[in-house]
Amino acid sequence: MLDLSKLVIETPSWGYADSGTRFGVFPQPGRPRNTFEKLDDAAEVHRLTGTAPKVALHFPWDTVDDYDELRAEIESRGLQVGAVNPNLFQDPDYKLGSVTHPNPAVREKAVAHMLECVEIATALGASAQSLWLADGTNYPGQDDLRERRRRMIHALTQVYAALPSEQELLVEYKFFEPAFYATDLADWGSSLLTCLKLGERAKVLVDLGHHAQGTNIEQIVALLADEGRLGGFHFNNRKYADDDLIVGSVNPFELFLIFVELTALDELPRLTIDQSHNIEAKVEAMTLSVINLQEAYAKALLVDRSALSSYQRAGDVLGGHEVLLDAFNTDVRPACAEARVALGGAENPIRALRESGYAARMATERESEQELTR
Amino acid sequence: MLDLSKLVIETPSWGYADSGTRFGVFPQPGRPRNTFEKLDDAAEVHRLTGTAPKVALHFPWDTVDDYDELRAEIESRGLQVGAVNPNLFQDPDYKLGSVTHPNPAVREKAVAHMLECVEIATALGASAQSLWLADGTNYPGQDDLRERRRRMIHALTQVYAALPSEQELLVEYKFFEPAFYATDLADWGSSLLTCLKLGERAKVLVDLGHHAQGTNIEQIVALLADEGRLGGFHFNNRKYADDDLIVGSVNPFELFLIFVELTALDELPRLTIDQSHNIEAKVEAMTLSVINLQEAYAKALLVDRSALSSYQRAGDVLGGHEVLLDAFNTDVRPACAEARVALGGAENPIRALRESGYAARMATERESEQELTR
Amino acid sequence: MLDLSKLVIETPSWGYADSGTRFGVFPQPGRPRNTFEKLDDAAEVHRLTGTAPKVALHFPWDTVDDYDELRAEIESRGLQVGAVNPNLFQDPDYKLGSVTHPNPAVREKAVAHMLECVEIATALGASAQSLWLADGTNYPGQDDLRERRRRMIHALTQVYAALPSEQELLVEYKFFEPAFYATDLADWGSSLLTCLKLGERAKVLVDLGHHAQGTNIEQIVALLADEGRLGGFHFNNRKYADDDLIVGSVNPFELFLIFVELTALDELPRLTIDQSHNIEAKVEAMTLSVINLQEAYAKALLVDRSALSSYQRAGDVLGGHEVLLDAFNTDVRPACAEARVALGGAENPIRALRESGYAARMATERESEQELTR
Amino acid sequence: MLDLSKLVIETPSWGYADSGTRFGVFPQPGRPRNTFEKLDDAAEVHRLTGTAPKVALHFPWDTVDDYDELRAEIESRGLQVGAVNPNLFQDPDYKLGSVTHPNPAVREKAVAHMLECVEIATALGASAQSLWLADGTNYPGQDDLRERRRRMIHALTQVYAALPSEQELLVEYKFFEPAFYATDLADWGSSLLTCLKLGERAKVLVDLGHHAQGTNIEQIVALLADEGRLGGFHFNNRKYADDDLIVGSVNPFELFLIFVELTALDELPRLTIDQSHNIEAKVEAMTLSVINLQEAYAKALLVDRSALSSYQRAGDVLGGHEVLLDAFNTDVRPACAEARVALGGAENPIRALRESGYAARMATERESEQELTR
Repeated sequence: MLDLSKLVIETPSWGYADSGTRFGVFPQPGRPRNTFEKLDDAAEVHRLTGTAPKVALHFPWDTVDDYDELRAEIESRGLQVGAVNPNLFQDPDYKLGSVTHPNPAVREKAVAHMLECVEIATALGASAQSLWLADGTNYPGQDDLRERRRRMIHALTQVYAALPSEQELLVEYKFFEPAFYATDLADWGSSLLTCLKLGERAKVLVDLGHHAQGTNIEQIVALLADEGRLGGFHFNNRKYADDDLIVGSVNPFELFLIFVELTALDELPRLTIDQSHNIEAKVEAMTLSVINLQEAYAKALLVDRSALSSYQRAGDVLGGHEVLLDAFNTDVRPACAEARVALGGAENPIRALRESGYAARMATERESEQELTR
Repeated sequence: MLDLSKLVIETPSWGYADSGTRFGVFPQPGRPRNTFEKLDDAAEVHRLTGTAPKVALHFPWDTVDDYDELRAEIESRGLQVGAVNPNLFQDPDYKLGSVTHPNPAVREKAVAHMLECVEIATALGASAQSLWLADGTNYPGQDDLRERRRRMIHALTQVYAALPSEQELLVEYKFFEPAFYATDLADWGSSLLTCLKLGERAKVLVDLGHHAQGTNIEQIVALLADEGRLGGFHFNNRKYADDDLIVGSVNPFELFLIFVELTALDELPRLTIDQSHNIEAKVEAMTLSVINLQEAYAKALLVDRSALSSYQRAGDVLGGHEVLLDAFNTDVRPACAEARVALGGAENPIRALRESGYAARMATERESEQELTR
Repeated sequence: MLDLSKLVIETPSWGYADSGTRFGVFPQPGRPRNTFEKLDDAAEVHRLTGTAPKVALHFPWDTVDDYDELRAEIESRGLQVGAVNPNLFQDPDYKLGSVTHPNPAVREKAVAHMLECVEIATALGASAQSLWLADGTNYPGQDDLRERRRRMIHALTQVYAALPSEQELLVEYKFFEPAFYATDLADWGSSLLTCLKLGERAKVLVDLGHHAQGTNIEQIVALLADEGRLGGFHFNNRKYADDDLIVGSVNPFELFLIFVELTALDELPRLTIDQSHNIEAKVEAMTLSVINLQEAYAKALLVDRSALSSYQRAGDVLGGHEVLLDAFNTDVRPACAEARVALGGAENPIRALRESGYAARMATERESEQELTR
Repeated sequence: MLDLSKLVIETPSWGYADSGTRFGVFPQPGRPRNTFEKLDDAAEVHRLTGTAPKVALHFPWDTVDDYDELRAEIESRGLQVGAVNPNLFQDPDYKLGSVTHPNPAVREKAVAHMLECVEIATALGASAQSLWLADGTNYPGQDDLRERRRRMIHALTQVYAALPSEQELLVEYKFFEPAFYATDLADWGSSLLTCLKLGERAKVLVDLGHHAQGTNIEQIVALLADEGRLGGFHFNNRKYADDDLIVGSVNPFELFLIFVELTALDELPRLTIDQSHNIEAKVEAMTLSVINLQEAYAKALLVDRSALSSYQRAGDVLGGHEVLLDAFNTDVRPACAEARVALGGAENPIRALRESGYAARMATERESEQELTR
């Protein structure tokens, strides 16, 4: 039985570091200088919300010498290891692709990195590798679309074969960017077909910002769940392209509708935040994101499923819609505050954060020697 | 080996009748009053182009008492029977869906109509039923997205089971309209998944106007072909939504790129035109559409595949692109004119049509008793 | 000082009649058979909500012999006359445009109809003519874009010259549909430039469904208000194109943000609903629309303007955003219910409507002789 | 009288430097290390095409100690000075905006930079300052949209007042990015309104990648020309967002239609390329861009204006369209080659570039000490 205490949000280590657009990155005071300081920020978000105990990691950005130590550091902060994310887009070798690259040496390098991430995941006790391919082409004729697809499937087959039975492979898709003509995994259908070829522990990861305008995301969620292939989420929000804004800040009703689909399931899938906080205070932005997720979930739990189902079976178009509105229009902030306190978090996390002076303290402590990883 | 003589375009009987937008239909002089007059128009387009010998039919719009007679009438005009298209959106019973409707009686009615179309196809010797579902919902909560999907798959399974081995079931998808919240088959992934559940003679039909803005259609074509599930096309063009304009009139380069993917195959799939000529002369519009398809195909045949492949393997981004540009920038009108003449068509079909006075003659002949079917 | 009692919603007479998509219209039981029955439905919506006292009219759909009688009928139902809307898209003469048509006779006909609407507005005591041009082209080369613009401005100048000083001319724009290549008034900039040429009582009307995907509508509202040219709204909601769904049903947060801009003004502009209820119960849909508008307005009134302004001046990105969230997340249903009761409406209008049996009664009473004026 | 020799393309100094996406920049071998090497690349493009004699400059990226020397260096390469482009997005002070920033000190800094650019333009003999504002907000509530607009107009008024009479101020707009909620100049209407407030030498600059999906750009061009406010272009092409791909590589027909509008004018406006060549060879990409522009222009010159006008006046929808198709389908490469040779360029610039070994030579010469400006 789902209830507010069941919500487990995973925040991303890379989400605490500087980020920006192609026009520039505006460094923020107090940004973490290394993985351990990112963990400190993640711990602060969990301390405030009681709902964000997991941390997703990104390699090589979070590479350390000793993964036992990393795991211990994570756990010592009251956190747990989330998904392991390989980086297949940063190295100059990946200019024309990673697992789809026309040059087999590059594809092998990409596979080797994913296999390394399998080992890191094993060392850390992570249960998933979460794969985003930036692969694609910018011009018609640049490469053969069918060949690229075959290369990708061949490469991922090798990775999947090395996956221990307790690990899943989450396959993300993205409509465009950084590729501007054809992205090799451009939509959920492409990802799901790939997963079907790999095996049952390959599942689709849905990033809310990775769809064409107008796409009905909750329908994709429903379909993937129906097929047993809903691997998880990268939460954020967008008004235009992959804007990577705070989840729920553009259309909170859409976020609610996604949770209406999720709360119809027996258990929640992996729920990770993936955002770029270019101009806003990062720890506060992450805290607000967790709150927005919690409130969407709380509202979805309020839906009168029995009434909804009755109206739907009767073909009462507005009856079913009004059941959803009734839940959405409820002010769930008191219930969420109560749940947070029960979980050890703050009644009002934003106010608590602002009053704590955390941001100012970090700005001072971390000022010297900005050796930022990423 | 593909060449210009291999191109076979299917024109739609319904494309010769009046059409419009929700704001109104502007009746055209000379529009056909029944199926036989639509066939006359289709025969005229084939006479002019030598490339459009097939006619797709739509039921109940093209319902007749005697299908042997209909088939004979088609063949007597030098035409062949194309795909059979059921209508599952016009009857008031389908207000909330056809095969996805919450009421089982409506679903059964829809299945019965599709089974009737199987029989019509058999009687006419048609090799495919081409299915477009207008099914969807307009409001969140209106119906259960998962239930609707299960109902649809259940219904289509019954139809597929009744399909003779020489018939294919083509499953179309559409991003939106007439449903404005969730369309039950909204993208190629949904259609392909459905086809995979049905069987190998269920294939996906691609309508160029049924995608979100920016969607790379040629990539979808490549992927479906790779999976052996590219069932055919509904050709038209769009600038905004499902505008149903003349194919090639908005982005002829995109049309060329689709044919670049098709000419990489051993044989061409079913190539049907599906347009709404709201304000332009219909027979001329259809003739121009066939010409645009022929020219896109002719340009695709010119692509230097060997050079293309060399550049692609070498990772020469612009080299491959320039090979395509070289083909696209060629004036293929003389070669197409020659091919049309060899096939019995006109050197310049538009001029021939305008000089023939066909439109004016039909306007006179068909003026009396406008008993338009549809 | 704005408060909940200041909200005045105008419902459209045409919104009570049957509507549909180009694929068909599903007739609803109980739909009004003439203008007077549409007024009955509008009166019912106002009776339930206390907030919808005005009715917009559409000509020739609402043409009557005696406008004094029409006005008396409107007022006898406790309603007031809203804007007068000319129809410049239905007549076959308008196939290639109305005020932009290449044929001067058609343009003159269009001007004559608008001048007739000026007279109707005068007879009814209406304070505005609300103009939507369906004009545009479907193919590049079909007509000269510059010429069309000059024809339009010339025609509207004639209409504006005939406008009594107590009437405004509201100039709507639309991104596309029914024109699919170029719409003559495609965006707010085109409308505003036209208004600037006409005079100060020409203002821009914003229809929420008439923008490209992603467009920031509240910013357009802010800009038009800043220029003194915000003429009013056609409210509805869209997920894809001009879906004409119930306002607030797709993104209620966007609707709230529009009202945040409106409540920064000294008075509200004309607020009209313009929707197509294709499958849902029409009177209930209109009632729900009024409620959604009321709730968006109520939330906007809650915004702590002083705190908002402080955060904004301090460059506190999330501070200002959180002020808005605080208002949006409040449950304003009790306050709205109270305000409705004070205005003579129902505490729970949807429940009151369902319990009243109005829909069933109309279905019976209006069953015979369906002489529907559209 | 326009003919092929009248085409003057301006290439951007910054277009020869490294560029990328927010996910990374892939450094290219042979990229210029300073402004003078960028000029060498621009001169190479002009040498090959005979059509690209102008170079747009960007400050502070192209800042030098002595502008007389810079002008002499430009002219010694057979080039001319193009527009001067200020940078108002890179400095951390501009995190929340430049001329719209809530802090007056930042706005003054932005104005000071633009005034500096006026002086640079004067020193270089440039006839325009081309202004792109990255200003905008990422979250509703972050700042007051009306206040930002007033600040912007106030700031630009100061700049315009300092503009010598031989200089124009070109005001660009952009739909989104880097701002993801509201961009302060988001569309042509916002830019034009600003220009109207500034004065007659303020004109709108159209960047092909800065529009919502589906926007009819040639119509905007026609309208701005009609108003005497078409200041010029930033050419590129896009399939999704502001992809900054090679102009003509996504939809060459759209580019042709833009030139159909331009060739209806008495003279061409400023025609500048603005692209990001992230993975393709930069000098070759720029050369291909110039060729694509030349071919679009050549095709537009072929349009039979008299026939077009006749069909349009007669309301012959397809007649006018077919006149455009006739021009577009012509192979203009021989005519363009001839024109290039007459202008001192290469018959086949791409082949000439590849055979010249320019790229390899630069890769060697510029290898040492990569002190790239930007």
